[in-house]
Amino acid sequence: MRAVIPFKKNNAKSRLSSLLSGKEREEFALSMLRDVAGTLVSSECFSVIDILTTSLIDIEDVNIVLAGKGLNESLNEYLGKMASHSINEPVLIIMADIPLVSGKNLEDITASQSDVAIVPGRFGGTNAIFIRNPSSFHVDYYGQSFLKHCQIASCNGLVYEIFDSFNLSTDIDEADDLVEILIHGSGRAAGYLKSLGFGISDKNGRVGVKREKI
Amino acid sequence: MRAVIPFKKNNAKSRLSSLLSGKEREEFALSMLRDVAGTLVSSECFSVIDILTTSLIDIEDVNIVLAGKGLNESLNEYLGKMASHSINEPVLIIMADIPLVSGKNLEDITASQSDVAIVPGRFGGTNAIFIRNPSSFHVDYYGQSFLKHCQIASCNGLVYEIFDSFNLSTDIDEADDLVEILIHGSGRAAGYLKSLGFGISDKNGRVGVKREKI
Repeated sequence: MRAVIPFKKNNAKSRLSSLLSGKEREEFALSMLRDVAGTLVSSECFSVIDILTTSLIDIEDVNIVLAGKGLNESLNEYLGKMASHSINEPVLIIMADIPLVSGKNLEDITASQSDVAIVPGRFGGTNAIFIRNPSSFHVDYYGQSFLKHCQIASCNGLVYEIFDSFNLSTDIDEADDLVEILIHGSGRAAGYLKSLGFGISDKNGRVGVKREKI
Repeated sequence: MRAVIPFKKNNAKSRLSSLLSGKEREEFALSMLRDVAGTLVSSECFSVIDILTTSLIDIEDVNIVLAGKGLNESLNEYLGKMASHSINEPVLIIMADIPLVSGKNLEDITASQSDVAIVPGRFGGTNAIFIRNPSSFHVDYYGQSFLKHCQIASCNGLVYEIFDSFNLSTDIDEADDLVEILIHGSGRAAGYLKSLGFGISDKNGRVGVKREKI
């Protein structure tokens, strides 16, 4: 069984620009990737873990695969290559910005008996897809990708399930999302934010993040 | 096994004021409550379903219990009454604004082997708590209630688990949250929003809600 994580380092997480500098955003994105990759490695669910990345990075126990194209093109080329090399093992496509993912989540999703298991992200996105037969599926990210992926599965005659998980559905894109890492996270991404002085603010029962000078 | 849903109709969902009138917010809150209550009834997990409400409402197959006090006071009085009447059955406290809850979610959480199962909401909230022995626990909502509930369980010597579900963690408080109902919902709350002209907008890959005149 394989896993693949697409990753973009340059100008990563641009919607966090109001809180983090360009360098901090890259480091933060990398810390989330390390959390996700580390959980994949520890789970021992996968014989191969590939990171499809736009620039060289250094992460242990995974394969670094340079990919110059866009997200959809890179992933569909990846799936196509598996098919053309007759690699018929299941594959988990998982985003690099869901650092709350747990080992149990990975055990559960890879145990799915459906042809495809789709994990919704917030705002209609897709945070992970487990595909039993990679040659039978293609991805279409951006916008309402969750509904598009359900439709792709249906159109290809595949039985799909919607995988229900707060951990996996919590993608980190905007300032408000940092709250979830600070409350529920215990990995590198949480540690990195705390090292920068981030903490929880609680004004009149409205929880948010604040950054204090260190 | 019991379930209790706290509900406030007057000036419900005030953070949706920019999108919905006062009357619409009340009707919308009621439609979400009906989704949650309907799923509880259909699940057949519960012999008693109580709605703790600040004003009279009409919902089938549940008990309407008028409660004039605040959320914490009402729920803690409810738990206290169970204890004083020697009602030692488990209870699920579930919020009225999580209309995506499924029958499977209810089966899973009520099958928990822990003393307490706590469901996080977004921004540190708590969307549901399953308590095996109601006399052993009290609630403390508002602010970072998730962490407070974990601490209450620990301080009382209880084994707790964190219940991981996108459906249950998706509480509807703000304009952006309506996207989740429109994409993932199929009940009364989704129908009500659509009847008001709400739909998904998708500008440059950023998904939101729009309201069209009907």
